[in-house]
Order: sequence, then C-alpha cells, then structure tokens
Amino acid sequence: MSTFPITDKTEITRLPKRGVYDVDTVHAILDEALVCTVAFTLEGQPFQIPTGFCRIDNKLYIHGSVGSFYMRELQQKKLPVCISATLLDGMVLARSAFHHSVNYRSVVMFSEPELITNKDELYTALEVFTNKMCPGRWDDVRKPTEGEWKATMVLGFEIKETSAKVRVGPPKDDEEDYDLNVWAGIQPLKLERKTLIADPGLKAGVPVPPYLL
Amino acid sequence: MSTFPITDKTEITRLPKRGVYDVDTVHAILDEALVCTVAFTLEGQPFQIPTGFCRIDNKLYIHGSVGSFYMRELQQKKLPVCISATLLDGMVLARSAFHHSVNYRSVVMFSEPELITNKDELYTALEVFTNKMCPGRWDDVRKPTEGEWKATMVLGFEIKETSAKVRVGPPKDDEEDYDLNVWAGIQPLKLERKTLIADPGLKAGVPVPPYLL
Repeated sequence: MSTFPITDKTEITRLPKRGVYDVDTVHAILDEALVCTVAFTLEGQPFQIPTGFCRIDNKLYIHGSVGSFYMRELQQKKLPVCISATLLDGMVLARSAFHHSVNYRSVVMFSEPELITNKDELYTALEVFTNKMCPGRWDDVRKPTEGEWKATMVLGFEIKETSAKVRVGPPKDDEEDYDLNVWAGIQPLKLERKTLIADPGLKAGVPVPPYLL
Repeated sequence: MSTFPITDKTEITRLPKRGVYDVDTVHAILDEALVCTVAFTLEGQPFQIPTGFCRIDNKLYIHGSVGSFYMRELQQKKLPVCISATLLDGMVLARSAFHHSVNYRSVVMFSEPELITNKDELYTALEVFTNKMCPGRWDDVRKPTEGEWKATMVLGFEIKETSAKVRVGPPKDDEEDYDLNVWAGIQPLKLERKTLIADPGLKAGVPVPPYLL
C-alpha cells in the first residue's frame, strides 16, 4: 500500500487515529465526491470556490470557462491551493450531546495549478469528468467543437501533500452513560440519484438510455 | 426582502444571473447544508477545514475541542475566513458534453471569528447544532457537564459579506442540438437519511424515539 508523506500541513493532529494517508483511500474518496472546494489566497484574503472535479491517476482536474476570474488568477499567478472534498456517511447519535459526531470521509490536499494544454490530457479529463457525472454519458452526447474546447480551461493539480480523515462505526459514550435510557446508533446518510426528469424540450421518441436506468 | 450588500468579494461575475443575495435564500441554504468548509490563510498558505455548523439569526457557528489547532489559530489571530456550503440538487444532462451542468445551491461568505463566551449563546448554539443533526435530539440526550462545556470551543461568524449561487431547471442546449437523438433532462440528487443502525451496546428495551422514525 503506497502512502502520501506526512508533512506539517497534512498531519492530522486532532483525533490522529482518524488520519489516513494511503493513496487508495484518498483516490476512492475523490472518485466518489461530486464537489470539491478550492481555497486560495489573494492579497492575504482567503477565498474558496465550490466546483465539480475528477481524478485521473494521481491528478485532480477542474474545468471552467476561460473567462472565469478565479481560474485565470489561479493559473496566471500559480497560486498555491488547498482543495477539500467531504462525504457524509451518517449521523452518530450518542447518549450524550457531547459525544455526538458524524461518520465521514474527507480529503484535504495542498497543490498548485497546472494549465492543461496537451489535447489528449484535456480530452481525457473532460471525458472522465462527464462520465463521473453519469457513467456512460460521454459516448452518448455531442462531443465538444473546436470553439467549445477553446472556451474551456482545464487545470490539473498533482495529488501529493494530502491526507484523508475518516470516522466509521458506532458512537463512543462515556462508560456510565451506557445505562441511560437513550437510543443510540447511526442514522446513515446517502446521496441518492432519484427518478429522472425529462427536459420539457426532449425530442419525441428519444428513450432513456440503459446507462441511466 | 432584505439582501446582503454586493461587494468586490461577493459579486458573482461568472454567470451573474445565478447570483442571489437575499438573506432568506442564504439562510435556507445554510440551514439545509450539514457541512461547510472554513478557509483561512496562515503565512500566505491557504488552508481549509470541513466541519459541521449551524446558523442562528444572522450568525454561523462552528464548534470543536479547545485543543483544536485551527480553531485556536482562528480565534487567537482573528483570522479572516471564507466559509462555503454547497447543496447538490441534480445532474443537468444536456445533449452536448459542453452544456452539461449541475443544479446546486451554494453560499460563500467572508467573515471573522468571534469566540463565544456568553453561556446562553453557547448553550443555544449547541442545542441548535444537535437538533440540526436530528430534529428533536437535544431534549432526549444527556446534556453537557461543566467539564464538557469547558472542553468545547464555539466560534461565531457574522453573516454579512455573503452571496449565494443557484442553478435550477432543465439543460440549456444550443438550438441546433435539440434535434439530436440524445436523452436530456435532470437526474435529481438528494442526501437521504436511511434505516437506523442501533449501537451494538444499546441498552435492552430502549425503543427508537418517535422523532427518529
């Protein structure tokens, strides 16, 4: 199992037993999370932007318009970023208010932006991004035109200075509280995909494709 | 309808029609979102921490251990923060890859930490936080002891320099693409609460309380 090196910035100091540094865990969290937040600093002021993303190998990709202010700033100034993504797995309902918690899996990574100009890498990033939204979607849709490619900026971030933090399992109460008449356990949380809503402008006779059923 | 003032930091410049500045919309997003990310800058380096939170009136609250490094840094140095929370409502499946999007509601706010020392405000924040996890929970559980209160740090952030960004509705394709034989529409996303899992150490005979059913 390969692991990310632990640095001053990535060491989990609060509840260190929840710290996870192995590459496979980090990659799996990033592949499941649909949104990340990209934090950066401009003139001493912290900013952050929520955005979709995807991972390929050991790189995280975001994309946006070439007119996007923050993507231009990131790229032109090569600003250091902190990116995080979090999955909520359940409410941890303890007998005491104090021991309430959440089961979660989160990643926090530190990196710098790289403007992706290689056409193969660009194309693959958009394909993986689209298929992350809905597996199978890319092959079904109209591919980008030359003009659309030119309007799209893709930034890559090497996944290097990175840690995950994970809580699993039941609540942990104080010994004397286990005798209280309070229900305790987990209320699982799950981001679910619900019944499709067809576009009001959908062409007559176009069926729902099998990969969406 | 009261609105937040639009500033250089909060003006939505990319897709400005998605920008929302009214207080009720911002509050509703913050009340529904279960996790936020708090971004701050230390020695020029951006950091961010995912954490639970709650809102009361026009203030956002986070809490943690008095031993938490980042909460101490925020509080002691009164670091400016950028906080965001995002709700994903659906995949927007267009006919072209380029027009794929996501329906979402997000808030980004800029503020500074205030250490909450007033006992009424502290107590209310923890009560609202616990009931946000599961409405009705606070009245059912063992309340914090004096020692637990002393171990807990609560920071408040006035909600002032703030904007929301919201996308709703079906995909918007290029006119000529509406004739393609590609299914288009929305795949709704919803964070759902699933079947409860009792703590293996649950005392015999303790029923699931009505507010969890």
